Amino acid sequence: MNVASFMIHDVRRSRVRDDMRAAGVEALVVTHLPNLRYLTGFSGTAGAAILGAERCVLIVDFRYAAAARELLASPPADGVDLEIVDRGFDEAIVEVLQRTRPPRIGIEAASMPVSRFNRLSAALASASSTLVPTEGLIEARRAVKDAVEVATLREAARRLSGMARGALAFAREGRTERAVAADIDGAIRAAGFERPAFETIVASGPNSARPHARPGDRTLQSGDGVVLDFGGVYDGYCVDLTRTVHLGVPAPAFRRIAVAVREAHGAAIAAVRPGARPSQIDAAAREVLVRHGLGDAFGHGTGHGLGLEVHEDPRIAKLPGARPDTPVVPGMVFTIEPGAYVDGIGGVRIEDDVLVVDGGCEILTDVPIEL
Amino acid sequence: MNVASFMIHDVRRSRVRDDMRAAGVEALVVTHLPNLRYLTGFSGTAGAAILGAERCVLIVDFRYAAAARELLASPPADGVDLEIVDRGFDEAIVEVLQRTRPPRIGIEAASMPVSRFNRLSAALASASSTLVPTEGLIEARRAVKDAVEVATLREAARRLSGMARGALAFAREGRTERAVAADIDGAIRAAGFERPAFETIVASGPNSARPHARPGDRTLQSGDGVVLDFGGVYDGYCVDLTRTVHLGVPAPAFRRIAVAVREAHGAAIAAVRPGARPSQIDAAAREVLVRHGLGDAFGHGTGHGLGLEVHEDPRIAKLPGARPDTPVVPGMVFTIEPGAYVDGIGGVRIEDDVLVVDGGCEILTDVPIEL
Repeated sequence: MNVASFMIHDVRRSRVRDDMRAAGVEALVVTHLPNLRYLTGFSGTAGAAILGAERCVLIVDFRYAAAARELLASPPADGVDLEIVDRGFDEAIVEVLQRTRPPRIGIEAASMPVSRFNRLSAALASASSTLVPTEGLIEARRAVKDAVEVATLREAARRLSGMARGALAFAREGRTERAVAADIDGAIRAAGFERPAFETIVASGPNSARPHARPGDRTLQSGDGVVLDFGGVYDGYCVDLTRTVHLGVPAPAFRRIAVAVREAHGAAIAAVRPGARPSQIDAAAREVLVRHGLGDAFGHGTGHGLGLEVHEDPRIAKLPGARPDTPVVPGMVFTIEPGAYVDGIGGVRIEDDVLVVDGGCEILTDVPIEL
Repeated sequence: MNVASFMIHDVRRSRVRDDMRAAGVEALVVTHLPNLRYLTGFSGTAGAAILGAERCVLIVDFRYAAAARELLASPPADGVDLEIVDRGFDEAIVEVLQRTRPPRIGIEAASMPVSRFNRLSAALASASSTLVPTEGLIEARRAVKDAVEVATLREAARRLSGMARGALAFAREGRTERAVAADIDGAIRAAGFERPAFETIVASGPNSARPHARPGDRTLQSGDGVVLDFGGVYDGYCVDLTRTVHLGVPAPAFRRIAVAVREAHGAAIAAVRPGARPSQIDAAAREVLVRHGLGDAFGHGTGHGLGLEVHEDPRIAKLPGARPDTPVVPGMVFTIEPGAYVDGIGGVRIEDDVLVVDGGCEILTDVPIEL
């Protein structure tokens, strides 16, 4: 791919327009903020866009007017018009739609609340427009990263790895989970991230048997396994990493779990290649854990896509749920994070971020896995 | 109020059941996580509840099974049954509803996405149940804090104030906005908060004229005004504070803005009392700024409710929008944060958190306002 990065939003809009045509809508009301950022670069905490067949209208409020003007001026975004909200976002959306009069208007059904849909429908009832629920139009494009995104994610993973190599040592006897988490969050920022990508997990001793324990007042002790799961947002993009460290000499039962999870992690990564289905990648990890008698101890999926959101498509799971089990393709970036959690012994999770490339995958994160 | 805190979720569920009867629904599907926490105490990142006329079913997935069991065991939550998700949350919700067969089932229309509503509707089509969009049932209760919440918010504001008195000094010449923000976030955690309540704002010099600027690489200089806006989450509850500091001697034009905003802030606080409408409190601040020729420089609302969410009801604004302009009542907690932003001069915002009490308000935050 050889698209100059300053044209990237143009290219993305043009691809989504292809999908809109296939979905039979002449306009798409973009209200999911990560999708808005993907199509326009606008990264405020409120905003919307109407993507039409020819033009895109970016709608922001007073707070972001100056930032949005700059964004669209340099480099010039030719296909985008700016609309500053006067009364409310819904009113502005309706005004734009009444002016441009697309007959069929897609909305993002996976994120638009029922009440907003009903308000917009009512406001547009007199126009000869119909709101059409669409799902995953932009998300499907976002699942396959373009060159600009791959470069950003690679750099983000490189920074997270460097930070992680030092941060695992924050977990020491006598410190609380909360103090360790605070140090990790500081190190994430010091490594150039805008913010942690999610609430950092430091789960020690018995807490490690809970996959999503929150850091608490428990003091780390010798003999503890400690699950450290953290991530950062770099230029809008999320990366995510988990290592499990052990303070002192691990008990044989804990060690067996750690060995099994490491093997499952390796098996899943080995299964990542273009054409593999998410359920197959998940099965590669799951079969290892089942063989070690830990099938029931692995209650979550093997991974999730990474990008402008920390959990996005593809979902690497036994049953991808509402999502089809579509084979992965080059450009997809997701986590591989099998784990096993046993009350009375503890839990282990190991997580890396991978990019699907021709013939296999590139492991973006690079932190030794110790046992 | 004299409700033992361990019964508080019972009391809340009972009040919401009154509202459900008034809204004509026999069950309410609670999917908005802050509402779920309010009714059950469950604070995971995924979950749902079905609040029926007699029982409440809390639905969590594998990751939170152990935490939810503990939550419901100690102290015992008699009216709550636990359901662990097997396939997916929607499937679990449908199973519970098919088992309990309420004829009219409320859903939270302000947060439930269109696609989820359509999936649930389709799954329940064969049952003799109807999904009924409801709005703000739990939010209206949440807007008026109970004794447990007031105690938590008071303590949170006390901690934030103590932390802020030291943190304003982080803004010094030669430091970047990002470095100041990182120090503030560290101090928020050191003060006992779980995490910052939102992305900390450090907006210096020209950036201060943007109400929601993100901390960047700009280095603070003598002559800068610096808007510092930050908050913390304490035991689930959000508090929020803004001060504007000035490095060196402020220019007269900047000083005039600061004086006007301080006056507007005082006027709005003086207007807070039971019976005042949000639009009246907003007008008290706005009229001061208009009188100082800064009406157009104040583009946002005067405040927002604080609680399990950092922006919740009541909205203190000129036009509260979809929300009715209902008079405030004792127990409401919200911010008062007028500001004025002038390109070429800079911006000033001053924010405190207030609790409506009989006859007026209690200012929960306590940090000197310097000019």
